[in-house]
Amino acid sequence: MKKRLFTPGPTPIPESVMLAMAEPIIHHRNPEFVEILTSVNENLKYLFQTKNPVLTLTSSGTGAMEASVANLLSPGDKAIFVNLGKFGERWGQIMKAYGVEPVEVKIEWGTAPTAELILQTLKNNPTTKAVFLTHSETSTGVFTDIKSIAAAVHEKYDIAVVVDGITSVGAHEMRFDEWGLDVIVTGSQKGLMIPPGLAFAAVSERAQKMMETSKLPKYYFSFKKALKSHADNDTPYTPAITLVIGLEKGLRMIREETVEHVWQHHKMLSEAVRNGCKAIGLELFGSPASHAVTAVNVPQGVEYSKFNKILKQKYGITTAGGQDHLKGKIFRVSHLGYYDEVDIVGAVAALEWTLHDLNFKFEPGSGVTAVQKTFAEYAAKTADESTASRQGREKAEALK
Amino acid sequence: MKKRLFTPGPTPIPESVMLAMAEPIIHHRNPEFVEILTSVNENLKYLFQTKNPVLTLTSSGTGAMEASVANLLSPGDKAIFVNLGKFGERWGQIMKAYGVEPVEVKIEWGTAPTAELILQTLKNNPTTKAVFLTHSETSTGVFTDIKSIAAAVHEKYDIAVVVDGITSVGAHEMRFDEWGLDVIVTGSQKGLMIPPGLAFAAVSERAQKMMETSKLPKYYFSFKKALKSHADNDTPYTPAITLVIGLEKGLRMIREETVEHVWQHHKMLSEAVRNGCKAIGLELFGSPASHAVTAVNVPQGVEYSKFNKILKQKYGITTAGGQDHLKGKIFRVSHLGYYDEVDIVGAVAALEWTLHDLNFKFEPGSGVTAVQKTFAEYAAKTADESTASRQGREKAEALK
Repeated sequence: MKKRLFTPGPTPIPESVMLAMAEPIIHHRNPEFVEILTSVNENLKYLFQTKNPVLTLTSSGTGAMEASVANLLSPGDKAIFVNLGKFGERWGQIMKAYGVEPVEVKIEWGTAPTAELILQTLKNNPTTKAVFLTHSETSTGVFTDIKSIAAAVHEKYDIAVVVDGITSVGAHEMRFDEWGLDVIVTGSQKGLMIPPGLAFAAVSERAQKMMETSKLPKYYFSFKKALKSHADNDTPYTPAITLVIGLEKGLRMIREETVEHVWQHHKMLSEAVRNGCKAIGLELFGSPASHAVTAVNVPQGVEYSKFNKILKQKYGITTAGGQDHLKGKIFRVSHLGYYDEVDIVGAVAALEWTLHDLNFKFEPGSGVTAVQKTFAEYAAKTADESTASRQGREKAEALK
Repeated sequence: MKKRLFTPGPTPIPESVMLAMAEPIIHHRNPEFVEILTSVNENLKYLFQTKNPVLTLTSSGTGAMEASVANLLSPGDKAIFVNLGKFGERWGQIMKAYGVEPVEVKIEWGTAPTAELILQTLKNNPTTKAVFLTHSETSTGVFTDIKSIAAAVHEKYDIAVVVDGITSVGAHEMRFDEWGLDVIVTGSQKGLMIPPGLAFAAVSERAQKMMETSKLPKYYFSFKKALKSHADNDTPYTPAITLVIGLEKGLRMIREETVEHVWQHHKMLSEAVRNGCKAIGLELFGSPASHAVTAVNVPQGVEYSKFNKILKQKYGITTAGGQDHLKGKIFRVSHLGYYDEVDIVGAVAALEWTLHDLNFKFEPGSGVTAVQKTFAEYAAKTADESTASRQGREKAEALK
């Protein structure tokens, strides 16, 4: 059976990327590889919309999260994190492991923090050194408005705003410099369309200044060493060479399409999935919605394990389940990375077939019809989009 | 031009491994991947000759070195390391970064430490918690007799013996359990014949006990978390999936050939390179010799940069140069991983051609003749080897 992944990492890999990675390996100090890394470094800046360096680490995204804590803070420092799901919670676990004093903002899983909430927490904890956020909380499919929060924080405080962008980079508008962000981390197996094994961190001038006084231990994940090598389009330790080669191709695809178009495309796909699910009669979990992954409540009368088994074994579609207390209660459909309209119609059709097999009552075809309607509406807006696209391209040129 | 890598990492990758990694990606929690990881975990134990778990991390080998320090020790602990080259030196740098008190045993680069030297250092530093060694020092091509040192240390002290086996695993006999080692780390782009991006650590019972009281911070590199996941053939964070898929194939190749045969094969190739170089009139650098990489002095009257350029650009062969104060003074030829007799004859022939182009005086053909003579001698020993091979296979079966 033809198998299709709709999980928020790993995400599907373009065939051209897979084949580029299968070519005979080259040495990481060869001029040929330096050229690849030069292109990668430039296109990562474009992707993050920044003139600051974006560091490439060989690890999962969690490694880059840990590096952000270890490189910016010192033992006993206070830092705020938002527990809005499994990945927001992770910031706090890393802080505890490193002897940083975490200030937890716990909100209901399925909701997002407001700027007011963060400002109130800062008021109560005026010695806070940094705020750690989650742009797209993968476990709940919820989006955090980091632009507004960063603006509100920086209006009053000279502290770092650090963002887990692991499933948001490529899926959501994100302007690192314009929005005054200090660190954004992401992983390779998400919007970048390559296998897992690489992680990235954009670092602002403020973040680089904090690195000078940070006293937490680090070696492999040292941003200072990575920055020094980055200036020469090198890495301090042997990088995952084949993944960097794939990355170069993935980034080129994004640049050619323009990042604004990629954001818009994800917005459209996520809206289509949400509309499709609602038309079937499914209830969405959480809001505001991430453009990377849609979380849906398992409907009453349907057993998640049966639903998942049919979807996977009969229709070849792998989605993700709920984590921790959401296990069995939600399922998550990813539309992050290398997906197009046909993929989404197919996924929603398979949802319909699976629910039909499980005797869930709904109007057959209602899901795919809603999906197609969404695409039609977006197509009607094409003229406007072209203009937006052109403006985006001009901005990108100016960054060069 | 056909290009050939003779560098001690990355090393060449078998075509079947490259193609396996180019297949559509699968999810790391899918039963199909769990099966792959189960096979990997079993075959890593075989490779390290241990019944203890061998943990798989997504990082370069340096990440696993750092993890060994961070998971076994606490701030202020004393630990011995041997500065016998760039990689031995790295143990000390990691210790310093983590607030461990390093006791440096500095010896001339190109030599190896003896058990006596380590015992003397331990006598002078009786509160030492661990000894950090380098089985094959990649920067100098020197082999350390970790078997004798571990035996001598453990006869008198209940402390950990931690070994950087990054370029020795697969190249040198190594029996983790029998030799009483506590941690051995390695990387994927070496004897394992896959691209860089994975690192491994075998952990003894003593090491696991030390983990319980270790107070250094760690999160991504936590051995405790990795051990917990390992028991379920899982990993705590998303692993470099495609590399694990390649690894499964690489390990299968080693198991089919038997690890004893792989060790013997590396011994033969390294002896052939050394004999070839000596016959040309080149002087070897350092001893005793690693079976992974041969370091050779750049002969008087030959400029390294010219030598390297001709070898690479005219004959397509990439070797490694000297590092730090050995830059320009030595070159290093790797024979670690996926190399056979034909590769070695070719590499030594290209050395001859390059030296001839640079007017170095020697008997043309003397290098390749010495290489072939070495192979012939090994072939003559075949009957004995088969016996050894059979015994090895029986030992391996017993480990299952």
